[in-house]
Amino acid sequence: MLRLLLLLPLLSAAGTLPTPLRRHRSASLLVGPYLTRYLSQQIDHFGFDENRTFQQRYLVADQYWKKGSGPILFYTGNEGDIEWFCNNTGFMWDVAEELNAMLVFAEHRYYGESLPFGNESFSDSKHLNYLTSEQALADFAVLVEYLKTTIAGAQHSPVIAIGGSYGGMLAAWFRMKYPHVVVGALAASAPIWQFGDLVPCGTFFSIVTNDFRKSGTGCSESIRNSWNAINHLSSTDAGLQWLSNAFHLCSPLKTLQDAAVLKNWLSETWVNLAMVDYPYKADFLQPLPAWPIQEVCKFLKDPSLSDKLLLQNVFQAVNLYYNYTGEVSCLDVSQTATKSLGEMGWYYQACTEMVMPLCTDGVHDMFEPQKWDFDALSEECYRMWGVRPRLSWILSMYGGKNISSHSNIIFSNGGLDPWSAGGVTQNITNSLVAVVIPDGAHHLDLRSRNPLDPKSVQQARAMEICLMKEWIEKARHSH
Amino acid sequence: MLRLLLLLPLLSAAGTLPTPLRRHRSASLLVGPYLTRYLSQQIDHFGFDENRTFQQRYLVADQYWKKGSGPILFYTGNEGDIEWFCNNTGFMWDVAEELNAMLVFAEHRYYGESLPFGNESFSDSKHLNYLTSEQALADFAVLVEYLKTTIAGAQHSPVIAIGGSYGGMLAAWFRMKYPHVVVGALAASAPIWQFGDLVPCGTFFSIVTNDFRKSGTGCSESIRNSWNAINHLSSTDAGLQWLSNAFHLCSPLKTLQDAAVLKNWLSETWVNLAMVDYPYKADFLQPLPAWPIQEVCKFLKDPSLSDKLLLQNVFQAVNLYYNYTGEVSCLDVSQTATKSLGEMGWYYQACTEMVMPLCTDGVHDMFEPQKWDFDALSEECYRMWGVRPRLSWILSMYGGKNISSHSNIIFSNGGLDPWSAGGVTQNITNSLVAVVIPDGAHHLDLRSRNPLDPKSVQQARAMEICLMKEWIEKARHSH
Repeated sequence: MLRLLLLLPLLSAAGTLPTPLRRHRSASLLVGPYLTRYLSQQIDHFGFDENRTFQQRYLVADQYWKKGSGPILFYTGNEGDIEWFCNNTGFMWDVAEELNAMLVFAEHRYYGESLPFGNESFSDSKHLNYLTSEQALADFAVLVEYLKTTIAGAQHSPVIAIGGSYGGMLAAWFRMKYPHVVVGALAASAPIWQFGDLVPCGTFFSIVTNDFRKSGTGCSESIRNSWNAINHLSSTDAGLQWLSNAFHLCSPLKTLQDAAVLKNWLSETWVNLAMVDYPYKADFLQPLPAWPIQEVCKFLKDPSLSDKLLLQNVFQAVNLYYNYTGEVSCLDVSQTATKSLGEMGWYYQACTEMVMPLCTDGVHDMFEPQKWDFDALSEECYRMWGVRPRLSWILSMYGGKNISSHSNIIFSNGGLDPWSAGGVTQNITNSLVAVVIPDGAHHLDLRSRNPLDPKSVQQARAMEICLMKEWIEKARHSH
Repeated sequence: MLRLLLLLPLLSAAGTLPTPLRRHRSASLLVGPYLTRYLSQQIDHFGFDENRTFQQRYLVADQYWKKGSGPILFYTGNEGDIEWFCNNTGFMWDVAEELNAMLVFAEHRYYGESLPFGNESFSDSKHLNYLTSEQALADFAVLVEYLKTTIAGAQHSPVIAIGGSYGGMLAAWFRMKYPHVVVGALAASAPIWQFGDLVPCGTFFSIVTNDFRKSGTGCSESIRNSWNAINHLSSTDAGLQWLSNAFHLCSPLKTLQDAAVLKNWLSETWVNLAMVDYPYKADFLQPLPAWPIQEVCKFLKDPSLSDKLLLQNVFQAVNLYYNYTGEVSCLDVSQTATKSLGEMGWYYQACTEMVMPLCTDGVHDMFEPQKWDFDALSEECYRMWGVRPRLSWILSMYGGKNISSHSNIIFSNGGLDPWSAGGVTQNITNSLVAVVIPDGAHHLDLRSRNPLDPKSVQQARAMEICLMKEWIEKARHSH
């Protein structure tokens, strides 16, 4: 179970959220109007026995598009509702006019409204069988070809794939597998190498730790010390009671296992903070101030405090994350594990193709040591879904580090983002380009322009736009 | 039904045969010893609900291999028993020593011994569900990676895919989809564009017709006139009886439909002759003399003869094809439609992904006019297998004519081969190279060297070897 929880950050960062509606409304001020459309897709692109179709949702904004020659920026939807991604990918809206581009946001099957079997989609492994990255990419390819043949003037529009996080992986893979469909891809914060043994499993958490270390004296040490403090207190009923009160928990801790849930929840909170450590007030996962880790670290200056004083400070820190608006009356340690469909989908994907080894050692990071344990994951996946993960398949399919024969992909990475551990951070060839944004958290470059943007993200975006223009020009000439 | 029959030539050319054992023995004189191996493969690479595996057969010959640096020539098995392909791809054996290469011949799932569900594999659409080109390519990718990690000294061996006909398509697609696995591909007589509306549906049969026209005065005209002659005679019982006797048929024709079967059988015979019109005595589909069409045309000089005299000549012609050895006592019009597994498999593939539009008009070709009729095919497929073909999927998947971003593929074509109609016959880029062998029939270049080889095939092979050496060198340097 722990392994699955450790996989959660990616989901939380980019996926389903407790209050999508509010987010939608607040964010939509930044984006223009769009149309919602649906396309019939084969439930199974790779077999012919299942011949039924489902409705894939996609969003189209063509108000900036120059008919006949303007490109199409195609968002490769990831593990969540496509409207939320549409409203949180301001970069595409910001560049649409400059590029005379049509914007298309394609929903990933099994998320949002694009459910192959409606309410039955998650009922068992039979219904979940078509939830794979390959099927999603096939949906995207069929959708692009459909748009090109049905929208007047779009037949020769160069298409560029854009995505972040898992969606960034999809954007890169889309270009690799369907180069006839997209002329290039912007893969933002896409950990395409967080698989197999391509990168050390511990780097992810050491980046999180660095973010906290750099954001305040004593900060990462305080967190490192907090685990033992919790362990001490949770060994008695009185201690558990004290923890429940100190953390203002909605449901009191009763057992040692509850205390483990508390620790996982705290770990995820630190990881999430590392992902959303944006330079301005933002509301991505939670409403937060600018540079939230710095704010959090103001409570975590003294790692040498007694257990209870230390943990009271830890509460102040997480309370800033979960209750910045001051409207929350208690904290819910199951909050990141809601049973929303989006989360269900990502759990399944993490149990099949998307096996990302992660580990901690407590030395190079501030977390409790935890080895990577594939067998435990496999057992848990079999128990939950009746499926076994396949460790090497994604490497066989997408090439691991051996991708130099591909072209026209930008891999952008945030230096603060733990997912940069599995990202492409150095140029592979002239046209497989890495961009590192030292002051950037999780796909900061995909967010709307902001007066407080650091220079590094401005430069990254400028380079991304420049390369995209090159691809578009080249496609125009070759046509 | 007719459409399916029209799809048969590809099968007959490269697939299962009535007497594989005899062929095996006669051909094996040309090739060296090899080992037979098996690898456990996922039955479904693209879904996790079906987690069973099957044994994929493959053959390995490493006697010429230079351990550590020599390349691997990887035959992408097509629709038939891999031993037969191994013994009919002399080119690989001829170049193994020069290239210090290991030879690997991988069997295509659902053919030969590589049956995912044993004897049940063809029982229904559920069991046939995993018979697709994508699954086959995934098998190849997994197999190559397995070989590289388990054979000492093979880890950095550059791998080149080689295949002919459908196997040539697979070789090309393998490089396109898994460029991290193979550094290049030789796609011999691979009609990757015989799909959708990429090429005119009639070219295939006009090439067959040209072969006959050029091989003897009156030859193609005689065949063109034979259809009406058959139609006249088959309108009466006496005529059917006469036809049965004249063609020495094993089972007499009883109905008009039987006469249609006779005509299809004749059409396939002419098509097969066009595919095996080799410059020397050979035994590919049948034991035949050098330039068999010229021999056949010696019987077909006068197209103006009366119906019966004309058809007696047609019998002499086809008798040369089916009875060159003189051992056959009667001709069997169902011979090309045996119920062997290999044929079953290709029928299914032609009913799902491999929809190749073909048509005749009787003007630009010597056949009875027959429009391309997708709906009829779809109905027939549904009746036979419970599946519907998907016309555009293969284009979405493999890019149709829009493949210029790929690299290191040689497309070789025989000028006499009807399948060159759907082949890549002009260079696309510097590294997507087309070779046309004017005097070549179906993948002549993949056959063993022969003293009677025309200059054009010698030059083609020299160029193929040269390019393969370039790929190998480049891979060595980049490593």
